[in-house]
Amino acid sequence: MTSTVTTTAAVLTELAIEILGSAGVPEADARATADILVLADLQGITTHGTQRLGPYVERIRRDSVNPRPNVVVEEKTASLALVNGDDGLGQVAATRAVEVGLRLVEDTGIAYVGCLNSNHFGAIAPYAWRVCRNEIACVIGTNASTSIAPWGGADVKLGNNPFAIGAPRRDAAPFVLDIAMSFGARGKMRRLQERGEPLPPGWALDAEGNPTTDPAAGLAGFIQPIGGHKGAGLSMAIDILSGVLTGSGFATGVASMWDANAGPQRVGHFFVLIDPAKLIGLDTYYERMEAYAETIKSTPPVRAGGEVLLPGEPEAREHAKRSTSGIPMDEQHYATLRALANG
Amino acid sequence: MTSTVTTTAAVLTELAIEILGSAGVPEADARATADILVLADLQGITTHGTQRLGPYVERIRRDSVNPRPNVVVEEKTASLALVNGDDGLGQVAATRAVEVGLRLVEDTGIAYVGCLNSNHFGAIAPYAWRVCRNEIACVIGTNASTSIAPWGGADVKLGNNPFAIGAPRRDAAPFVLDIAMSFGARGKMRRLQERGEPLPPGWALDAEGNPTTDPAAGLAGFIQPIGGHKGAGLSMAIDILSGVLTGSGFATGVASMWDANAGPQRVGHFFVLIDPAKLIGLDTYYERMEAYAETIKSTPPVRAGGEVLLPGEPEAREHAKRSTSGIPMDEQHYATLRALANG
Repeated sequence: MTSTVTTTAAVLTELAIEILGSAGVPEADARATADILVLADLQGITTHGTQRLGPYVERIRRDSVNPRPNVVVEEKTASLALVNGDDGLGQVAATRAVEVGLRLVEDTGIAYVGCLNSNHFGAIAPYAWRVCRNEIACVIGTNASTSIAPWGGADVKLGNNPFAIGAPRRDAAPFVLDIAMSFGARGKMRRLQERGEPLPPGWALDAEGNPTTDPAAGLAGFIQPIGGHKGAGLSMAIDILSGVLTGSGFATGVASMWDANAGPQRVGHFFVLIDPAKLIGLDTYYERMEAYAETIKSTPPVRAGGEVLLPGEPEAREHAKRSTSGIPMDEQHYATLRALANG
Repeated sequence: MTSTVTTTAAVLTELAIEILGSAGVPEADARATADILVLADLQGITTHGTQRLGPYVERIRRDSVNPRPNVVVEEKTASLALVNGDDGLGQVAATRAVEVGLRLVEDTGIAYVGCLNSNHFGAIAPYAWRVCRNEIACVIGTNASTSIAPWGGADVKLGNNPFAIGAPRRDAAPFVLDIAMSFGARGKMRRLQERGEPLPPGWALDAEGNPTTDPAAGLAGFIQPIGGHKGAGLSMAIDILSGVLTGSGFATGVASMWDANAGPQRVGHFFVLIDPAKLIGLDTYYERMEAYAETIKSTPPVRAGGEVLLPGEPEAREHAKRSTSGIPMDEQHYATLRALANG
């Protein structure tokens, strides 16, 4: 049995900065990284929050992440830029990309900023949230190390390449859809195996390519993308926009963040920002978004007592709750962070 | 038993122009529409080819589609434009949007063109293909009349909102992923019911929201989006980019193309174009795309004799085949077209 401690965003941010600082990360970069990780913790996206500091620090120690990158921004046109992350922490390159994107979008109303030579950048939702807080809509994606086979293929060549679409609302949390390309995940499959439970249908194929609900067979086979060939194709499309188009790694050229000795991951990200104000005016846009939200949320629930939520609403509610009553955290995880801070 | 006739793209294009002309569509608009429909027929996307001329003409006759729209282009910035389709054929507005996008992308390397007050515009793949032929990458989407319930909801509020991502290759057919948000479709579910066969898992929920493989229960219930809440969220995101952001109809505000008396559909589309040459140079881009394609296509097939294909490859092969040996067509469908041409 594990017990839980409760901390605050402020305490956790300072702790994260301390941890990264003792690993050699300059303070501004440490703060940028901490802000993104703690925002994920606030939103309840625990798997992509400060839990990741352990592997991040380990990768810095093994020279797989550059703690002091010389991040270089190349503005290609009034609306296009590339950010070379110099193998530093993904949050450092990505935070810079958001800053550049927000500046470029002021001019032409749309911007594409690509990141190359980056590493794992955390969850996407916090970046989308930040862009939306500036009254800008966005599409953000990243590639990742491979875990999925192409449709009809018997070898993993595709990442779980997540992407997010964000749209601001005036007096409500933004619409933020943040999805990866698989139904399940290997970690969840292992937990089902331990409990002797079957996989939900659609999660995996066995090694011969047949659908299976047996966790062992699925783990020896292939994780299934959402919608079969559709999710597999979408993973490729995200890889083209993140990796091919930016000059970064792609497909099997992206290393795993879980292998500390694998060297720089060469992850690529992309950020497309669009200004609704320049298209239809901000007031009109916000009125239309509210009408849209109302149309969806007024749908009667299929189960008694249920509620239809917009993408991003569960995270926004968790954010509001945790901002006032604190961030609950596994005691052992908190102890690990404390130990990391002491080097 | 139906028999098949074989026609050519040239003959079919002239026939489509004649049909639309006799319904009152000016020749340039008729040609734009015919080109997109016949390109779908060439690519084997038969459901979205000249078969649609029947319902299109019927909608024109019932004043639901304006045969002589005054399409207006508003350029909002150097990179943003809106195309008001004036309730005309979707292909007319969308063809204009592609033209505008290709012009704007020359300047800043990226463009967003939204279409409002449009109608069904056919398959997306032909537009993506056309953009890619100009050495430009693209993301194109459209909303559609509602057929899917929001996640946890008991009423259809979401369209099957398809979108496509296209990326050019130098000496090969472009990468074109064109996907809608549901696994199955009501038409296919009805055919399975007629044959007494079960639905594939994941296609539908019954009226109480439980997964079902019984076609009757599924038809009385809800079509499932790919990836459950993921596909439902993606449908919303496409609707925001197509409908909310353009000033067009959205959600339940988009009428069905199958109801000739429903009035203008008020469909919205969006076209985002990105110039790889301005990001990393065209030669570098093409080399990287070939390396990407090679990485994917060299995957050993999971089944003996199988082949791993990129999105768009099946359609490109069909296009090559049909361009030389003709377009096979159901005889009755061809007779219907002939009859439409004679008004």
